[in-house]
Amino acid sequence: MENTWHQHILRVHYQDTDQMAVAHHANYVGWFEIGRTEMMRNAGIAYSNMEKLDLLLPVVDMSIQYRRPAHYDESLAVFTRVASFSAVRLQFEYEVRRIGEEPIPSNNTVITPYGELLSKGTTMHMWINREWKPARIDKVAPDVFTLLNKKFSSEGNNNKK
Amino acid sequence: MENTWHQHILRVHYQDTDQMAVAHHANYVGWFEIGRTEMMRNAGIAYSNMEKLDLLLPVVDMSIQYRRPAHYDESLAVFTRVASFSAVRLQFEYEVRRIGEEPIPSNNTVITPYGELLSKGTTMHMWINREWKPARIDKVAPDVFTLLNKKFSSEGNNNKK
Amino acid sequence: MENTWHQHILRVHYQDTDQMAVAHHANYVGWFEIGRTEMMRNAGIAYSNMEKLDLLLPVVDMSIQYRRPAHYDESLAVFTRVASFSAVRLQFEYEVRRIGEEPIPSNNTVITPYGELLSKGTTMHMWINREWKPARIDKVAPDVFTLLNKKFSSEGNNNKK
Amino acid sequence: MENTWHQHILRVHYQDTDQMAVAHHANYVGWFEIGRTEMMRNAGIAYSNMEKLDLLLPVVDMSIQYRRPAHYDESLAVFTRVASFSAVRLQFEYEVRRIGEEPIPSNNTVITPYGELLSKGTTMHMWINREWKPARIDKVAPDVFTLLNKKFSSEGNNNKK
Repeated sequence: MENTWHQHILRVHYQDTDQMAVAHHANYVGWFEIGRTEMMRNAGIAYSNMEKLDLLLPVVDMSIQYRRPAHYDESLAVFTRVASFSAVRLQFEYEVRRIGEEPIPSNNTVITPYGELLSKGTTMHMWINREWKPARIDKVAPDVFTLLNKKFSSEGNNNKK
Repeated sequence: MENTWHQHILRVHYQDTDQMAVAHHANYVGWFEIGRTEMMRNAGIAYSNMEKLDLLLPVVDMSIQYRRPAHYDESLAVFTRVASFSAVRLQFEYEVRRIGEEPIPSNNTVITPYGELLSKGTTMHMWINREWKPARIDKVAPDVFTLLNKKFSSEGNNNKK
Repeated sequence: MENTWHQHILRVHYQDTDQMAVAHHANYVGWFEIGRTEMMRNAGIAYSNMEKLDLLLPVVDMSIQYRRPAHYDESLAVFTRVASFSAVRLQFEYEVRRIGEEPIPSNNTVITPYGELLSKGTTMHMWINREWKPARIDKVAPDVFTLLNKKFSSEGNNNKK
Repeated sequence: MENTWHQHILRVHYQDTDQMAVAHHANYVGWFEIGRTEMMRNAGIAYSNMEKLDLLLPVVDMSIQYRRPAHYDESLAVFTRVASFSAVRLQFEYEVRRIGEEPIPSNNTVITPYGELLSKGTTMHMWINREWKPARIDKVAPDVFTLLNKKFSSEGNNNKK
């Protein structure tokens, strides 16, 4: 399972375009969010359930590189994986790629992202409680921490820090 | 005070445009929201204070007519007024107009909207509590109801229904 | 084919929510847009192809009724159908409904929308050219008009006006 | 003029909030865009005029650090300055800060940003033409390049690269 990417297919909507006739760069922030939500759900950790435990996971740092523009109605894939994690932080890595109308069937997981690379990025998140104070996931939700370790620990990921 | 319009100036941002090179029609929903927020604040009823009283005011009905498109970087004015209200409902009326770079000074209130009409609309709202149940504003927040009556009652407005 | 509804499944994203913990009412405007885009694509009329013919189809009138709120991560279906059309106008009708995690398989088309009704609405559109002047689709794109007639004409739809 | 920051005041709208009851992190992308648009306009380089010269300035790299959340209806200031530029690139630096209801009058320019720091970020942009090919601003729009040099060159900015 380690080091694979979760694949989520989406389409560029009219509302996403701007008058350069490309998807406005702010949309990638939302696409990353959809990518990590679906990836976590697929891993058995639905974010909606985390909030029921009064755990929030806001973004503390985000970085996006834009290589090529996306256009209206194109089919894109957001590839997402956990880049690293600890008991207090969680970092995701993303690639947004243009794919054809027929995505490669993948059971949602691929070893190597395919398609034309449009954008890469990372987001760093911190576990906090409802009072907006840091939370240790290994104390507050040990089951989730065990699951994270089981699903995303590997030599390849530098997730022991 | 009756039947006057509250004026709020805003600008079309790049992100608002779509590939028709006009402001996407969904933006008017947000502009109406800004218009009524600023109008209510100006009337002494800050929506943020209503929420502290556990009163919410969701939209239950919205209607928008689009006459002419707005373009990037144009200066617009949102004109807002209370169309009608009761102890359980509140209806706003809006006009979005294109104005020049120098808006007419107005102390935020005008008798007659000026500029080129782009769009008209209305939103109907219902007072509810945190459990999403209808609330009577005259019971739950009588001061606010008194203020609404003082500010927005008039023969011209059909606000007694 | 007549009078059936096109079904498009989507999910409420985190970015769609507001601090009432429901999907902000402006999102329905985008969901309607996705609904009609997918419905038209399914009917063989991709909007992206219309723009290549220099035909645009802006919204001139929109009306939305909100019955119940949608929440984060819920599965929704947007049901869309053509309410009426002529050579110059096209009106769509929508229902947004909350469905379970397992949508009813439908080959994209259903006779009767299912799920819990959250919102209903209509949008009226006008065919225009790049100069933002009205266009007659029967003159400019007769094939499309023929297709509209074939797909969406029926006694039930009042589409002869 | 060198190394000063342009100040633009804005307010957190209801639509900007999410169910954590804070402004969603994607909004900062739009606020940065407003900040640099207003800063450039103030410097005599309206972006709308650049597009009339067929020059576009898409984002190629963006980085945002989030320190504290913004809440509904709070007054914020976006402080923007040019971090560096050359004939082909332009980099902006931003700070978003929470300010009181009475912003410090500043003639739009301040030496030192004030208020509580919520977020910092940078965006790197590239000049391109309508064919999405790199453009040299010193060749295509020498007046603009002269103005950039006059307004934003200084020892403090590493803008000679």
